[in-house]
Amino acid sequence: MTASLDALFDPGSVAVVGASDNPEKWGYWLASGALAGRARRTVHLVNRRGGALDGVPFLPGLAALPEGADHVVIAVPPQHVRPVVTEGLTAGARCFTVITSGGTSAAEERELAELVRAHGARLLGPNCMGIVDTTSELRLSWGEFPAGDVGLVSQSGNLALEIGRLLARAGQGFSRFVSLGNQRDIDAADALEALIAHVPTRVIAAYVEDFRDGRRLARVLASASAAGKPVLLLTVGASAAAGRAAASHTGALVSARATVEAVCRDAGALLLNTAGELVDTAVLLLSDGVPPQPCTPVPAAAGAAQPDTPRTTGDPVANPPEAARAAPEPVLGQPRTAHPAAGPVAARGGKAARPAAGDAPTTGAPRAAAPHRTPLRVAIVGDSGGQGALAADAFAVSGVEISPLSGATAAEVARHLPGRSECGNPVDLAGAGEADLGSYARIARALLSSEDADAVVLTGYFGDYATANPAQADLECTVARQLIGAAHDSGRTLVVHTMALDTPALAVLREGRIPVYERIEQAATALAAVARRQSPAPPPTLPTPARYTVPDGGYETMRELLASYGLTFPAAEFVRSADAAVEAADRTGYPLALKAMGLAHKTEAGGVALHIADEGALRAAFARMSAATGAEHYAVEAMAAPPYAVELIVGVRQDPAFGPVAMAGIGGVTAELLADTAVALAPLTPERARALLLSLRHAPLLTGWRGAPPVLLDAAVAALCALSRAAAEHPELSELEVNPLLVHPGGAVALDAHGVRTAPKIGCVG
Amino acid sequence: MTASLDALFDPGSVAVVGASDNPEKWGYWLASGALAGRARRTVHLVNRRGGALDGVPFLPGLAALPEGADHVVIAVPPQHVRPVVTEGLTAGARCFTVITSGGTSAAEERELAELVRAHGARLLGPNCMGIVDTTSELRLSWGEFPAGDVGLVSQSGNLALEIGRLLARAGQGFSRFVSLGNQRDIDAADALEALIAHVPTRVIAAYVEDFRDGRRLARVLASASAAGKPVLLLTVGASAAAGRAAASHTGALVSARATVEAVCRDAGALLLNTAGELVDTAVLLLSDGVPPQPCTPVPAAAGAAQPDTPRTTGDPVANPPEAARAAPEPVLGQPRTAHPAAGPVAARGGKAARPAAGDAPTTGAPRAAAPHRTPLRVAIVGDSGGQGALAADAFAVSGVEISPLSGATAAEVARHLPGRSECGNPVDLAGAGEADLGSYARIARALLSSEDADAVVLTGYFGDYATANPAQADLECTVARQLIGAAHDSGRTLVVHTMALDTPALAVLREGRIPVYERIEQAATALAAVARRQSPAPPPTLPTPARYTVPDGGYETMRELLASYGLTFPAAEFVRSADAAVEAADRTGYPLALKAMGLAHKTEAGGVALHIADEGALRAAFARMSAATGAEHYAVEAMAAPPYAVELIVGVRQDPAFGPVAMAGIGGVTAELLADTAVALAPLTPERARALLLSLRHAPLLTGWRGAPPVLLDAAVAALCALSRAAAEHPELSELEVNPLLVHPGGAVALDAHGVRTAPKIGCVG
Repeated sequence: MTASLDALFDPGSVAVVGASDNPEKWGYWLASGALAGRARRTVHLVNRRGGALDGVPFLPGLAALPEGADHVVIAVPPQHVRPVVTEGLTAGARCFTVITSGGTSAAEERELAELVRAHGARLLGPNCMGIVDTTSELRLSWGEFPAGDVGLVSQSGNLALEIGRLLARAGQGFSRFVSLGNQRDIDAADALEALIAHVPTRVIAAYVEDFRDGRRLARVLASASAAGKPVLLLTVGASAAAGRAAASHTGALVSARATVEAVCRDAGALLLNTAGELVDTAVLLLSDGVPPQPCTPVPAAAGAAQPDTPRTTGDPVANPPEAARAAPEPVLGQPRTAHPAAGPVAARGGKAARPAAGDAPTTGAPRAAAPHRTPLRVAIVGDSGGQGALAADAFAVSGVEISPLSGATAAEVARHLPGRSECGNPVDLAGAGEADLGSYARIARALLSSEDADAVVLTGYFGDYATANPAQADLECTVARQLIGAAHDSGRTLVVHTMALDTPALAVLREGRIPVYERIEQAATALAAVARRQSPAPPPTLPTPARYTVPDGGYETMRELLASYGLTFPAAEFVRSADAAVEAADRTGYPLALKAMGLAHKTEAGGVALHIADEGALRAAFARMSAATGAEHYAVEAMAAPPYAVELIVGVRQDPAFGPVAMAGIGGVTAELLADTAVALAPLTPERARALLLSLRHAPLLTGWRGAPPVLLDAAVAALCALSRAAAEHPELSELEVNPLLVHPGGAVALDAHGVRTAPKIGCVG
Repeated sequence: MTASLDALFDPGSVAVVGASDNPEKWGYWLASGALAGRARRTVHLVNRRGGALDGVPFLPGLAALPEGADHVVIAVPPQHVRPVVTEGLTAGARCFTVITSGGTSAAEERELAELVRAHGARLLGPNCMGIVDTTSELRLSWGEFPAGDVGLVSQSGNLALEIGRLLARAGQGFSRFVSLGNQRDIDAADALEALIAHVPTRVIAAYVEDFRDGRRLARVLASASAAGKPVLLLTVGASAAAGRAAASHTGALVSARATVEAVCRDAGALLLNTAGELVDTAVLLLSDGVPPQPCTPVPAAAGAAQPDTPRTTGDPVANPPEAARAAPEPVLGQPRTAHPAAGPVAARGGKAARPAAGDAPTTGAPRAAAPHRTPLRVAIVGDSGGQGALAADAFAVSGVEISPLSGATAAEVARHLPGRSECGNPVDLAGAGEADLGSYARIARALLSSEDADAVVLTGYFGDYATANPAQADLECTVARQLIGAAHDSGRTLVVHTMALDTPALAVLREGRIPVYERIEQAATALAAVARRQSPAPPPTLPTPARYTVPDGGYETMRELLASYGLTFPAAEFVRSADAAVEAADRTGYPLALKAMGLAHKTEAGGVALHIADEGALRAAFARMSAATGAEHYAVEAMAAPPYAVELIVGVRQDPAFGPVAMAGIGGVTAELLADTAVALAPLTPERARALLLSLRHAPLLTGWRGAPPVLLDAAVAALCALSRAAAEHPELSELEVNPLLVHPGGAVALDAHGVRTAPKIGCVG
């Protein structure tokens, strides 16, 4: 029913409705961009008020065109959009790009799209930043789009410009650029399909906030990979809690991000975190030497042609954000009369829905994967919702969470945002920055002087306003000085990420010691590094070595050593025969454990028998163990199985440079799989030992997990300190460990101990 | 006994021995650098063959100086170093910087240092790149050192230059730079102390490969933090297995990297991964607004003045690498006759000891933390050992392992390295690159055409040789074209990381589609992203929804639903009274489990009783549970406790865009702490389900961990597929989970099931 997108990217004729000769209007950039393709196609410029550009007179309307126009791009006030489209359809137009935003409801926009489709035509937008095809000399947008091999589909205009800058610095650029806007007809999947079919497009980049029919998108991603065109995807939400409360563990564990990651993995697409990562990866993929992709053809899925059931797609209940997306977009008055140099207002499509802080799942969510929890509170300010959301995600990846603003701060910030009464974090200026550069300084000052932010990060455009509009150079430098003043007065940190490179405003900022970064991940990494700094403590002094050395690292010896330092072990005797074991059992009592000595991996070798209840079982276990291991020496040990016990592994290793290093971790047979350990120089103080234990990912097991009583942490701390001191005083042991150390509500008991005795040093030459 | 380092950084007089008027010699750069400080201090130039520079005549020897020299910098052939030092000591010199490398044994170098110390003087080097203090106009080095607030101590000269470039691009630079060389007297801790005491140094950066007395270094790091001077540390080894085989779990779990991380954490220092991260963090710390550091004064540790026992420091057995470090440094003939423009040969101090691949610990080491294991084999080539090792670490952080080269490839590469018979990966050109730029292309070609590397990464200097020596511009461009040819011929990937920015050679590379990155982490991130691409698969088609909908998500209903899809549950009956429970138990048999129905968190609420052995226990459990939970409805269920069972959690969540998403993870009460899960779009194929299960960190538990028999994976796969289909056909369930799914060698049995029924939709408007 609908036409292909060929006429969109390479029309035989183009008409710009709302053309202008004023470089401060979108109509000028669209008209001059269209005229740049005059050698390839007919270009008509339309403005009912007349005028001309570059010798081409403005016609009064589409009806006046001699032979119609294949592609009509519209930048007129909202109320004129529908009449223009109707006129264009009558004149035979095959596609429309509607830059105009606001002024119409979502329902009116959907009706407009239906009207267009009913005529077999297509519609891009509304509220989009236009379309560029550098291979067909089509430039219907604002801003610079260097030519190259990357096709970009984006829901954020500023992000597209940032990607363009980074590509240009790497000697690359765009084959095609499609700004999606409100996606009333052409959506991300449609645009991706057009890029897949476009031969000169070698790598596809996409920034998508709103996946709509996710299954269809997944199919398109897979077909792109199968066609040998890798898709590099950016989205937002890594920093967000799940979009809605979860009622089960599954709900808590399956985040929106995990889902997109899985989709990308299975479709052969690459999910990246930042514009910089995307560009670096695109450049790599565009090198001739990248190994052929592991692309087996996608088998035609049974029923692939069958549309998915509608409940995941068009259903307004399943997709509630529709109205919410349209609503907060401020209407900026006249279409595109804002300074074009100040950035593409029109491109600000749907905002990423950032859940409020209270949206955490109701079940216990996994702890953040970030290794360091930090109290650093960062506020982000951007003139583009997409860049702000990506910045928040980059910080989350680095372990810095973006916290919500208090009501008072949000209100104070909103005071500087015309027509707004509230704001979130990231603060989305949504055009207020370009409309008045001073907004940046006022809002930064409001945040820096609030009690809600230790650091403020400006992301995206600031520093670049004067590049396209040199008349703003002085103003931008003035605002840069205001920013420095705001940071200085607050004594807090202001950081600027900018798509600009070396501009006067950036020089002012650097001179004022404001850190300026080219990539948002640089700001995130640096702030995360600073945030994880702790108060310094001098390393523990090494004790004088004990006056005796241990002869070996066997259990019996280590038990004796560690018991002398205060560790608790179950009662045990060491025997060589079954009869001796039975005699010993009379003293230790049943139930008991029997362990073969001198084996590296006792458990695997059949050298451990637990819960032996009586003499018969003991003799049987002894016979079995003796046959299996051939051991000469056995421990008969009272069985320790206190309730609510947690198995720890604690140990010390001699480092050639740092001396003894203590380790505490979650033990048991899966200790290596968990790898949940923490280390510090030995010997440990109780404070340090406690901090190590509480820093474990599984520390909640120690403090009363899911109704269990807490273990006696003091006992675990004391055991860890004693072990670390024993190792520090016995440097002849290169390794010493207790595994498991059973900690429970009543204490801590060591169930095994093992040392590695360094070979005595003979005849060393100095 | 030894003097302070004041005379090193700001001497009253300087003598350059080995001065030259030939800009291709180190003696020229040292002499002209020294002369730049003439306004502040007396400068003497010494060359026994006479000559002059900038009007200053070369004296025949130090004895000829009218009043001696505080600081003597030496760039003469190795055999002349000791006589010059002796002469200098006689003339009253207080410190020596020895650029000269090679020609003397480690023992001879130590004797030289002892001689110097015996006279109360100090020695920097030998084999160092010199010393710079921009605040005292002391420039005794090669290369550009922009002035700024960062004090740098480095064991790698090229890395220092890279850091300088990045600092300059950010508007910053160095207060002091100390090249450590072979550290025969002045070591890293000494140099750090001098930077701590230096008021204009506001941030301290250090690149250290060799920690020597680690405890002392830790104390110095802590005192720097306490003095308000953050130390930013780079080291190498993140990519290496532990330096020696470990005999215990502790040994395997306490890596060298973990130890350095702990030392830095506790000393308030920041361990970073790359030069770029270091510079970004330094710039941030140098902004005025960075919050005051959390620096409580370091308490004077009891016995801090007492030196540590010598076993961790000077002991030649504890520190065996000493000889190994000195040995592989090739003697490059005449001192510093290599083109200075080609990079600082002299600065290449001790190489990072990179353990061979066979050095893995003997106990099961934890799996790499990298989320994606990849077969991508990367070879790294650098003219600096430090940059090569840091590059390897950056790749390891990104999940790409640097694999060893085969013997044949190593020999083929070594054929292009004069005087070498082998090489590792990273390939350290160790001066061969600057001596002959063509080496880069020949070695890249050898690697690209070998069977050992899918991608080759040049790191550090290439692209920048012509910057200081424009005569090399044509040659560097020629080599760039040779590199393009090598990549093209091999069909493999060549990537260049360079400290240069926009040079003709880089333009050639970019034109030839060789990816060029400013920071090594960009190369690592991009290659890691490409490496994790998988073959695409189309998303599973959604099945038609079942013709019936389930009334609720309770256990009884979900059990029935899932059983109809093929899941196995233990025999169970649902009852409302103790008497009914006892009757049911006659049919299910003992031991059994009693569960209260309708509770969100049964276990915590006391709603689960397991292993009930007889009627008495059942009645007691019922009474207790009824009192605790007030539940009206109970399950009496046969106890399932198969041996060698592993608890999984499996579930499905409806995503608003992607529809049902399946999850498999390790279950049990610690599921949320582990967060070891994997997701994919539902319904799952058996292949996908199997891949999900095997992708878990704890997958080894399923396949036979430590002597246990493997579980019946096919049963787990079948259960996961059935669950995912049930959820896909019942979209009225927004969440559905089985937790735990007990998988064991004989099968898989679901012990609980839980769903969330979406509220029926009423009156939706389309």
